Amino acid sequence: MHKNKLVVVGVGHVGSYVLADAMKLRLFSEIATIDILEGVSRGEALDQAHATALTYMSNVDVHAGDYSDCADADVIIVAAGPSVLKDDNNPDAIPDRASLTGINAEVIREVMAGISTFTKEAIVILITNPLDTMTYIAASEFDYPEGRVFGTGTMLDSARLRKVVSQHYGIDPKSVTGYMMGEHGLTAFPVMSRLNINGIRYDEFGTYFPEVQPLDPEEVGAAVVKAAYDVLNGKGWTNAGVAQAAITLAQAVLLDEKSVYPVCTILRGQYGHDGDVALSMPCLIGRNGVEKKYGVSLDEWETAKMNASIDYIQLAMKDAKTGPFKG
Amino acid sequence: MHKNKLVVVGVGHVGSYVLADAMKLRLFSEIATIDILEGVSRGEALDQAHATALTYMSNVDVHAGDYSDCADADVIIVAAGPSVLKDDNNPDAIPDRASLTGINAEVIREVMAGISTFTKEAIVILITNPLDTMTYIAASEFDYPEGRVFGTGTMLDSARLRKVVSQHYGIDPKSVTGYMMGEHGLTAFPVMSRLNINGIRYDEFGTYFPEVQPLDPEEVGAAVVKAAYDVLNGKGWTNAGVAQAAITLAQAVLLDEKSVYPVCTILRGQYGHDGDVALSMPCLIGRNGVEKKYGVSLDEWETAKMNASIDYIQLAMKDAKTGPFKG
Amino acid sequence: MHKNKLVVVGVGHVGSYVLADAMKLRLFSEIATIDILEGVSRGEALDQAHATALTYMSNVDVHAGDYSDCADADVIIVAAGPSVLKDDNNPDAIPDRASLTGINAEVIREVMAGISTFTKEAIVILITNPLDTMTYIAASEFDYPEGRVFGTGTMLDSARLRKVVSQHYGIDPKSVTGYMMGEHGLTAFPVMSRLNINGIRYDEFGTYFPEVQPLDPEEVGAAVVKAAYDVLNGKGWTNAGVAQAAITLAQAVLLDEKSVYPVCTILRGQYGHDGDVALSMPCLIGRNGVEKKYGVSLDEWETAKMNASIDYIQLAMKDAKTGPFKG
Amino acid sequence: MHKNKLVVVGVGHVGSYVLADAMKLRLFSEIATIDILEGVSRGEALDQAHATALTYMSNVDVHAGDYSDCADADVIIVAAGPSVLKDDNNPDAIPDRASLTGINAEVIREVMAGISTFTKEAIVILITNPLDTMTYIAASEFDYPEGRVFGTGTMLDSARLRKVVSQHYGIDPKSVTGYMMGEHGLTAFPVMSRLNINGIRYDEFGTYFPEVQPLDPEEVGAAVVKAAYDVLNGKGWTNAGVAQAAITLAQAVLLDEKSVYPVCTILRGQYGHDGDVALSMPCLIGRNGVEKKYGVSLDEWETAKMNASIDYIQLAMKDAKTGPFKG
Repeated sequence: MHKNKLVVVGVGHVGSYVLADAMKLRLFSEIATIDILEGVSRGEALDQAHATALTYMSNVDVHAGDYSDCADADVIIVAAGPSVLKDDNNPDAIPDRASLTGINAEVIREVMAGISTFTKEAIVILITNPLDTMTYIAASEFDYPEGRVFGTGTMLDSARLRKVVSQHYGIDPKSVTGYMMGEHGLTAFPVMSRLNINGIRYDEFGTYFPEVQPLDPEEVGAAVVKAAYDVLNGKGWTNAGVAQAAITLAQAVLLDEKSVYPVCTILRGQYGHDGDVALSMPCLIGRNGVEKKYGVSLDEWETAKMNASIDYIQLAMKDAKTGPFKG
Repeated sequence: MHKNKLVVVGVGHVGSYVLADAMKLRLFSEIATIDILEGVSRGEALDQAHATALTYMSNVDVHAGDYSDCADADVIIVAAGPSVLKDDNNPDAIPDRASLTGINAEVIREVMAGISTFTKEAIVILITNPLDTMTYIAASEFDYPEGRVFGTGTMLDSARLRKVVSQHYGIDPKSVTGYMMGEHGLTAFPVMSRLNINGIRYDEFGTYFPEVQPLDPEEVGAAVVKAAYDVLNGKGWTNAGVAQAAITLAQAVLLDEKSVYPVCTILRGQYGHDGDVALSMPCLIGRNGVEKKYGVSLDEWETAKMNASIDYIQLAMKDAKTGPFKG
Repeated sequence: MHKNKLVVVGVGHVGSYVLADAMKLRLFSEIATIDILEGVSRGEALDQAHATALTYMSNVDVHAGDYSDCADADVIIVAAGPSVLKDDNNPDAIPDRASLTGINAEVIREVMAGISTFTKEAIVILITNPLDTMTYIAASEFDYPEGRVFGTGTMLDSARLRKVVSQHYGIDPKSVTGYMMGEHGLTAFPVMSRLNINGIRYDEFGTYFPEVQPLDPEEVGAAVVKAAYDVLNGKGWTNAGVAQAAITLAQAVLLDEKSVYPVCTILRGQYGHDGDVALSMPCLIGRNGVEKKYGVSLDEWETAKMNASIDYIQLAMKDAKTGPFKG
Repeated sequence: MHKNKLVVVGVGHVGSYVLADAMKLRLFSEIATIDILEGVSRGEALDQAHATALTYMSNVDVHAGDYSDCADADVIIVAAGPSVLKDDNNPDAIPDRASLTGINAEVIREVMAGISTFTKEAIVILITNPLDTMTYIAASEFDYPEGRVFGTGTMLDSARLRKVVSQHYGIDPKSVTGYMMGEHGLTAFPVMSRLNINGIRYDEFGTYFPEVQPLDPEEVGAAVVKAAYDVLNGKGWTNAGVAQAAITLAQAVLLDEKSVYPVCTILRGQYGHDGDVALSMPCLIGRNGVEKKYGVSLDEWETAKMNASIDYIQLAMKDAKTGPFKG
């Protein structure tokens, strides 16, 4: 009979948090870990297995595995490959995720080769950076059904946007609707024209919060990017937010929630592109992965940002173009 | 008005997991982090703050803080100080937590000095190793009410015991009742005389599970200790299990659950000792911390193990005796 | 020491669901029930107490109580008094909650007298219908701090709105932002000008969902009201949705979430009224109850609906004016 | 692709609570309700559907259905048929669930006919009373795989036992291991020989809790039965505890937890019976339903109680023997 099964590929800083979050959900009956460091894979699985013996934890069958575990998996979350890390010589540095393109393109190709040997049914959620290029490779080079592989994309940047806005106005971020679009990285931009606090639009904020300093779009975008680097340069890496984003998507898939989240997927006619770039836009997430893509209309400022972001991603993609693009 | 508040002191490998687990509980309205590395403290808090903007997360006010945050805290979890780490030159090593005594005695004294400046009301849960010595110091040197400071102790070892037993017999560890006692470390021992699978006693296992190889007490004890080192030597440290243990205790405190868990506390008449050693035995955990201590009777094998464990802890305590013991 | 404490006043169809939902939260350490039928109060508490012995349940101290339990309560939820019930002789009837005004005004006055004898600190969340009149009485006649007593109001109607919209468009209601305002009852209206699907505004729905029949404001409003009566005429009463609404608010209070929800409160300058009517508008909910009231601007259609709703509520209030209004 | 699906048959006092509890789990993507009163089925589903639009709720596809919904169900919970209700003329009455045998045997036969037309794969969990006779009918008359249909049995009585014991000793019921066996009803008995408080056996309670009045087995058994009737005669019916029991079992099935719980199943060699009676004993619950039955040895007092309980159930079964028993 069917078992709700998750595979986590890569259990370093990020994947270990994905695993930890997944263990709390009471949604998965089996979780397999895969890592090139087999000891790490075994150690992480075993540590979590011990925790299942504590009150309130469900009895998840968590174990180190290999790609054959993907055969009956429902969801696979990929956090393999090195992350952007803090530069200890330059504590205020803003390292670019794109610097990882070469090495992680190889990693993702190996991972997707492993996965697609055993399944083309499971929903694959990518976290590995640079996310947009990695998603493009994964979704275009392995005959994997396009909607079934997507990236967490700007779901995390969007959480940061809502946190930045909500803290500025002193309210719960769950009461803020809004997202970042474009690259998961330095060129991501806030879609101010669609930002609202429980229906109060961005252009009305001054009216409803007259005591609060207004937020400029450029400032907001910069604050969100800065938020990422405040975490990175503070603790040395980022993992808690992105892991929670991936797990939220995994649940939306497994429960077929039909939730709209900004995730990374290949453009198919949106913003004048068709199959030549992947980036984040609002998508409908269900049992089949990305079930719809909403290429929401943007204002002038946002459109310029979008175009710049597309240019930037496509530049980064060149570093990865050793494989046969089939967009 | 009252806010449910947690302070996490030390947000390294272990404390960062404590923080991550605490963020999911929807029990705390405020969480403050403290670390000697201020960047790490800020980075961890900020990363978690971003996650609060995701679906299903409560709006926890999570922030870097300092000891003054303890003034209105309900619970303080201390994971400060270095941990036992994997020895890369000896991957099968079984490093002794006691090797950390000197350095961590200093750490705990500094932390408790910081905490007790601002509160003697909050319940302090210690994770720092060697746990028994650290608990002794914290509970005896600062005029902190004795029940209000205790260590996670063998709660994790006990989870490992239940997992080892439950995997051996193919059942949910939640259906196993049992615990380790004594030192949180190499001399911890399984209380086989009180182990049961939903009321089926250890001495009956052969009858009910005739197809399964019987478990010898020494083997079980060794398997539990080995489980810890399989994690350590696999991933480099252990954190998931112990963090969940600490959080389970924190909830039992905040909700005044009156749960019986094996935690580390100073002996007061149990096993022939009064105030000269701290170790783990089943205790009643409620809003006032350790509210009762159950010095359960042990059989001959267990008694020998207990005495050896006490001797071992007292030996380790000597390395820490720079402060004025008041037991 | 502080205990997270809830009191539920009235444990009939609605209050029993409030109690059941509260038991699952792992947020309260103590819950007291009050009902004029003491057997019902005891029976409900005892039934829930038995459930605490099951796996995954926290050890809530749930018991029948009396108004003295309010003295140290954090939150009090009032579901006392008769509800609108199905008319078995007329299965398609749309009974008006206002028909309960006379009897429930008495009930609420008795309940608030009981509560305010013991506390003016606890946050009081009212569910009793007709909700707007009951909130007016509770918030104006007992010297209770105004923000500390409020009604669930159109929080439930708003959930129904989001469900109606989200089902129409085949998406998760959590991806819909929107609410009903005005009376919790027949004259509630959808604020279409602020309705959006993850930032896609109502007036753009046709563009993004061309295959779906457009939604007319009057139709939407009618569909939401009909949804209530479909439940009522189907099962005989409504309780699941409103109980979950109340519990969501209770958590927002206890965790000081600063969430924006549409709840019922006395107008203080909004929509041309000051102290002469209570109705639902978006409010900031935190540890002090209603901490801000957002009198959002409305379009012409909405304004007409608002005025009609105010007239209607004030008419209903007249039936309750036996007490000394102090608005 | 697979969806986690639950069907609830009968959504009266008990089934509506099962539904409400299931909605909170974030485990099911689809829930269908079935009731002979179609309006009730639709009303309950719709009320819960509205609640899914509130914060923290997952987007469950909850809807009224029919037996064809069982075709792809993972778990089916049956709470159909009338319950034992309070006798208003005799508030201290102890009505016997067995009085429902005739009518509910018909109900269960109709329900099982409906279910087995569409599936013999789904795990069927029965709540309908008299539970043991209903389980016998369901498991023996429809060629349904025997382990795939079982009753909640004494899981609720056992929760009451743990609550009675834990309240007596002032501890968390989760720290108590113990259960009732035999009939789910008046002849259920506590298995005192296997009762323990975190490993402290019943016969040691006097030593560890000298200040507490000892508990006599007969008194404990009577207190548990009385607890049921205190609920029944207080609120008019019982539902919260049994609903939570059923949901706990459903999760153990769906997550393949291999948990040991006392549930009702046909004896196969235990206690000298083979196929001629169903009652509750500890069983291993996993993806295939009852995967093992533990006929634990009993002491003299318990054995006498067991035999009396078997006699009583078999007597009640006679009233139901209109169908072709095939035990």
